[in-house]
Amino acid sequence: MMRKIYDEALVNGQCYQNLHYLCKNIGQRISGSANAQKAVEWGEKLMKSYGFDKVFLQECMVPHWVRGAKEQGFIIEGTKKTPVAIAALGMSVATPAAGLTADVVELHSLDELKTLGEAGIKGKIVFFNRPFDPRFISTGSAYGAAGDQRFAGPVAAAKYGAVGVIVRSLTEALDNYPHTGTTRSEPGDKLIPAAAISTIAANELSATLKKNPKTKFYFKQSCQLLPDAKSYNVIGELTGTENPNKFISVGGHLDSWDLAEGAHDDGTGVTGALEAVRILKALGYKPKNSIRAVFFMNEENGDRGGDKYAELAAQNHEEHIAAIETDGGGFTPRGFGFTGMKPEALRSLVKNWKPLFEPYDADKLGNGGGGTDIEPLQAKAPGIVLIGFRGDSQRYFDIHHTPNDVFENVNKRELELGAGAVASLIYLIDQHGLKF
Amino acid sequence: MMRKIYDEALVNGQCYQNLHYLCKNIGQRISGSANAQKAVEWGEKLMKSYGFDKVFLQECMVPHWVRGAKEQGFIIEGTKKTPVAIAALGMSVATPAAGLTADVVELHSLDELKTLGEAGIKGKIVFFNRPFDPRFISTGSAYGAAGDQRFAGPVAAAKYGAVGVIVRSLTEALDNYPHTGTTRSEPGDKLIPAAAISTIAANELSATLKKNPKTKFYFKQSCQLLPDAKSYNVIGELTGTENPNKFISVGGHLDSWDLAEGAHDDGTGVTGALEAVRILKALGYKPKNSIRAVFFMNEENGDRGGDKYAELAAQNHEEHIAAIETDGGGFTPRGFGFTGMKPEALRSLVKNWKPLFEPYDADKLGNGGGGTDIEPLQAKAPGIVLIGFRGDSQRYFDIHHTPNDVFENVNKRELELGAGAVASLIYLIDQHGLKF
Repeated sequence: MMRKIYDEALVNGQCYQNLHYLCKNIGQRISGSANAQKAVEWGEKLMKSYGFDKVFLQECMVPHWVRGAKEQGFIIEGTKKTPVAIAALGMSVATPAAGLTADVVELHSLDELKTLGEAGIKGKIVFFNRPFDPRFISTGSAYGAAGDQRFAGPVAAAKYGAVGVIVRSLTEALDNYPHTGTTRSEPGDKLIPAAAISTIAANELSATLKKNPKTKFYFKQSCQLLPDAKSYNVIGELTGTENPNKFISVGGHLDSWDLAEGAHDDGTGVTGALEAVRILKALGYKPKNSIRAVFFMNEENGDRGGDKYAELAAQNHEEHIAAIETDGGGFTPRGFGFTGMKPEALRSLVKNWKPLFEPYDADKLGNGGGGTDIEPLQAKAPGIVLIGFRGDSQRYFDIHHTPNDVFENVNKRELELGAGAVASLIYLIDQHGLKF
Repeated sequence: MMRKIYDEALVNGQCYQNLHYLCKNIGQRISGSANAQKAVEWGEKLMKSYGFDKVFLQECMVPHWVRGAKEQGFIIEGTKKTPVAIAALGMSVATPAAGLTADVVELHSLDELKTLGEAGIKGKIVFFNRPFDPRFISTGSAYGAAGDQRFAGPVAAAKYGAVGVIVRSLTEALDNYPHTGTTRSEPGDKLIPAAAISTIAANELSATLKKNPKTKFYFKQSCQLLPDAKSYNVIGELTGTENPNKFISVGGHLDSWDLAEGAHDDGTGVTGALEAVRILKALGYKPKNSIRAVFFMNEENGDRGGDKYAELAAQNHEEHIAAIETDGGGFTPRGFGFTGMKPEALRSLVKNWKPLFEPYDADKLGNGGGGTDIEPLQAKAPGIVLIGFRGDSQRYFDIHHTPNDVFENVNKRELELGAGAVASLIYLIDQHGLKF
């Protein structure tokens, strides 16, 4: 059966052409945008064309953040002004209309805010410049280790009186693209303008500061948060023949950042998830349990789609066996990570299923995996196993959240092999369950 | 030690910048060319700058094939002439100066030559159009399964009176680049002009032939084989402290095809091999056995460098423990393949070393591996184990032997991780040997 699944993926695959449509005919699709709505309609129509048993939408309200005019940033050393590449962080506020100029304090961790205190921070622009640690083998781990600067840095710096925050782009690559991404806040937090700066420009700013600590930074951005907008998750289902109210889901997120086409992040996730379910249907497979492809809305800056899916799963008393998420790019599959299984059960799973995935080089099965969209299910669907698709991570942060996240940077075979791996895993779970 | 090796590769890596120099300051370096000589001088100088114990050249005579003017190809359907992308196969002969026009017979295997016989072949251009089989998980296997059309097709077709051969490019990608590559012959074989055609053009030619079997093909190429030229293998050595006459070598080939920069094929191989040895030296490692980085000359169209290395190894009574070759592109490491070990010894190796490579995701250790450059050693250095570096294969044949094989298509981390994996394997072999 796995060989049939892979043959269907590699010989009759449709995910690459679907991704092409999503990237080139729709393009960027940030939550709340007209393009996000187009993507919802595309997803629904496509799922219906595949003749799934059910295709439906789940309405949810999503943040509607807009970038506004292209941002400007300058390193100011005396009378010398050097333009640098920046991009507002998602959910950031604007600078004053004329922009913002201030002294710069370069930090490498959030802890240093405490060390310097208000005396060292107040009135300044905080420049978080801790680079990716190249020693991590998984670039996702490097992202995790550097990510607090972007996620939590702006709100933390504001508490010490900073007037703005510039964050080194979350990538190991030396490039001239600012890598955007969301920054987080809770109601009541003081918000200050925050932007990502390219790694090349970050190095330049740091070198300039070393030479001349009186260096200032200027930036201007006009982003704003509009009222919440109505949007949707898109769901296609093959209804289970034995247990229609038990579910195995696979999903990615339909929204993307606004700077490119959201090809790897997460066009490959949604088209790959859909492809996995299409393959099973194309092979005439009649699942015991219901199998769903889920296009989540708003993973990038709010997770409202994931929250809504979990809320409705609880409300409708759906029993979720497993939820698979693919949101790490459409790269060559390496395996899957599992969260929510007892250690001995996971050991049995690995022992039994690893040999099945070995011929397909997707046999890295192990602990730890999930995804932002499916995490809310942990609370709402007790007993669920969350599963993260693990693809090769080396190239992801070169293009992540930049204008380079385009269709041309996705390889057809890598995407198809991912769909084959996911469809195989769904098949195994549907046949054998996860109660090892 | 492996962690130190990987840290050196990822934090202080030099292979990416070396590859940049080789690709951008030298570029294409087909055997016998002035650029190949520049590459030899660059390699020697670089190895000397690393302070290896020995750096030396091995002289060898290599074929000197030149492409000449850009090739022209046309599908001719009555009065309609459609230009298509072709490139002479390496070692092919030229067409007559005015080009060659003939009826076309489309074949999908060499066996069909026999079926059709001279009556069906004589005076015609044979068009070998068997595509890559997408069902192979390793694209190298797909290349192997389709490759006879290019390697052996022209000589085989000439025996039945064909006047020329057009071969579908050896790639699964649908693109408009002819993928060149060598074609083989023995002394005395009748040689006819042979060219690769892009996969898009191959599909077009096939469709046109179906519609109109009287379709002709015209092509013109002016390639020629000049007298053999003098060239060199480049070798850098850390001399063994215990067994200076026992060797562990790692290599790739310095020559490349003439259409691009030979970045993946095989700039990543030579810079990665060199980096592996540099890492061990940088860490102050004193090897028991002699360790060599070998830049082989002329892998693409003659294997003369590999032959010379093996010949001198025998002549100098060198004992080779293992030879590692990396010639499958500088992609994320998956592991290594071993040829020349007894099955039970290989099982022990895998059992002992697989866990060491697991944290680095390079733990696919198994049977079968080698490389064109090191295969001659099998006869000349009895007891040697040949080892092939296994990187992710999915993207390789998109760029293989095309103008797209450029530095920009190599990822820094993938290349560095490869060097880390190779250096680790050398370390393990040096410490523990291969006599499991």
